[in-house]
Amino acid sequence: MNVTVRGRTQAFRTVTFDVGENVVRLIEQRLLPHEFKIISTRNFRETAQAITDMVVRGAGAIGATAAYGLAQGALAFRGGNAGKFSAHLETVYRALATARPTAVDPVNAMDGILREMARGETVAERQALALAAAEEFANEDVVHCAAIGRHGAKLIRNGMNVLTHCNAGWLAFVDLGTATAPLYAAQTQGKRFHVFCDETRPRSQGATLTAWELAQQGISHHIIADNAAGHLMQRGEIDLVIVGSDRVLGRTGEVANKIGTYTKAVLAARHQIPFYVAIPLSTIDWNMKRGLDIPIEERHESEVLGAWGILDAKNARAGQVKPVYVRVGNPASTARNPGFDVTPAELITGIITPAGIFKPQDLWARRGHLGFPD
Amino acid sequence: MNVTVRGRTQAFRTVTFDVGENVVRLIEQRLLPHEFKIISTRNFRETAQAITDMVVRGAGAIGATAAYGLAQGALAFRGGNAGKFSAHLETVYRALATARPTAVDPVNAMDGILREMARGETVAERQALALAAAEEFANEDVVHCAAIGRHGAKLIRNGMNVLTHCNAGWLAFVDLGTATAPLYAAQTQGKRFHVFCDETRPRSQGATLTAWELAQQGISHHIIADNAAGHLMQRGEIDLVIVGSDRVLGRTGEVANKIGTYTKAVLAARHQIPFYVAIPLSTIDWNMKRGLDIPIEERHESEVLGAWGILDAKNARAGQVKPVYVRVGNPASTARNPGFDVTPAELITGIITPAGIFKPQDLWARRGHLGFPD
Repeated sequence: MNVTVRGRTQAFRTVTFDVGENVVRLIEQRLLPHEFKIISTRNFRETAQAITDMVVRGAGAIGATAAYGLAQGALAFRGGNAGKFSAHLETVYRALATARPTAVDPVNAMDGILREMARGETVAERQALALAAAEEFANEDVVHCAAIGRHGAKLIRNGMNVLTHCNAGWLAFVDLGTATAPLYAAQTQGKRFHVFCDETRPRSQGATLTAWELAQQGISHHIIADNAAGHLMQRGEIDLVIVGSDRVLGRTGEVANKIGTYTKAVLAARHQIPFYVAIPLSTIDWNMKRGLDIPIEERHESEVLGAWGILDAKNARAGQVKPVYVRVGNPASTARNPGFDVTPAELITGIITPAGIFKPQDLWARRGHLGFPD
Repeated sequence: MNVTVRGRTQAFRTVTFDVGENVVRLIEQRLLPHEFKIISTRNFRETAQAITDMVVRGAGAIGATAAYGLAQGALAFRGGNAGKFSAHLETVYRALATARPTAVDPVNAMDGILREMARGETVAERQALALAAAEEFANEDVVHCAAIGRHGAKLIRNGMNVLTHCNAGWLAFVDLGTATAPLYAAQTQGKRFHVFCDETRPRSQGATLTAWELAQQGISHHIIADNAAGHLMQRGEIDLVIVGSDRVLGRTGEVANKIGTYTKAVLAARHQIPFYVAIPLSTIDWNMKRGLDIPIEERHESEVLGAWGILDAKNARAGQVKPVYVRVGNPASTARNPGFDVTPAELITGIITPAGIFKPQDLWARRGHLGFPD
């Protein structure tokens, strides 16, 4: 997407690969929305560290980063010894696979690259195939998001108010995003609409990342407290909800997503407001039988007990421009911090996929069409 | 309530009056939960300023502060000239009435004091009556909250998990509070239970004030993000919800309260979890005909776009211990910030009042019993 920094506009992807330098270039997301900066990782270990440190986050984006990291590691190998190359590749794979232990996207992405590489015979052939497969993986991510945008844009009419939760935007993928792709497509089609971004405590990805994305694209929007959506719905100020997902159960249509998603779905159902979930097909879990079995990560309580932000000039020390943590809650109190929740199919109007929009209850019947693994 | 500071436990009210010194003593609520401090206002202008500056907040607490402020102003008058005394009183009244222009409690409280004072003839008599009436007003507030606690405690059973939203605790009244009074009463009865405090963005009164109150009383509790309550309800981890209110419509049973209350009521209804609202009778508005007519204050966007908290040692300047503001949201984005929402009667299990617990739909039929003004 286009990003304007100090008056200059340029197109970016969240993650790209520079073959000549053999470096991965990443948008440093920990500085957003306060500073836009591209960082370069010069070898596979730095790339893995960037995933660990959450320089880059989001399912599609870390998948592509791992894919590029694997290619980067492969390309750094010197010589033609196949046995040594395989051992080296294993080291690279392990470093990238363990960078975010609970994420499946890096592993899935790298397994795809390895399958492509197996078609080569020499080290040089396999290196070339690694590069091609990594580029293909990243491009496919963009193609999928574009298709989501094309299908989802049909839901957006002139004058609508759209609610989003958390960030399933282009920063979480390679480009365009999932929940945001319909917005960007509708904007390109000349539609006028307004977006309410749920702040999305405790990590505030709506107030920081989604709001930054929308501002960069010149899309009319307001940040709201997570508490405010119900009131706005009651007053008729929200017409449509679009969110992303971390896992959709193909058998039941249940949707796991950032904590608070379920609450918004319950409110939308009460007010008969359409509630959509936008995902690439890789987000569908065809195995798990019920949402209650989805592990809900309990994150560190410091996220709930405080906030990260920028100090104003009078409180900052000289030169202090990076976000700092402030403790908000009572010092003697503790917090619970479930990171995700599960929304039942009955509350979801439709699942927007690259293959079209489906009722969540229909995913299983359409599994042949939707990439169900044989 | 008892407060323990540096190992020493002492009983406090939110606001008290020292006759000998003619000063009003207030808990400096802007420093909580990080520092407990009592400040003294030495004349009615300082008392009014403390209301304006939100040293003291909450319906009952600012009502009592204005009552004491009026007595303080009356007692400061020297001499016996009735005409001059009346003119002086008018100045005092105006200063306190305009300290928080939209609040009705200071005005209602002072009107009650003035009615009592009218029974006196001399300046000295009227001064004595002012003091007695102000003390009576504050004591009545405590008596009402104690009765709310007695009725509400019956709802709390051993092992329950109770959800609260915002702060309708003793800090918002003279003592005990409304939504918290049933908790304190149940604790005194030896019941064991756990409380989840909604953080209550954007001002975080749950994470700061309610959590501080519960920690001081040794009541088991966790702070949670406002987004988390739906998930906890879904998993069977919440058994009861008790909140306060800024205005309950006597004719319809609708409840205006801090933004997010409506959302919690919708979630509770879906999960068949009892949802109670605790109020003194003065909170009932017998005139307004529908909740849609309740003015919803749109507060400053800075509340949504950032947070107030304490810096850790490495980011604080030397000696910097007071809360600072950090900007969290995207700098180029704006926010909507409705401060309150309205919950319909159908979502409310009962209204806990000093006169007992009533279905919200029954308030009007019981208006004679509930202080409906003739």
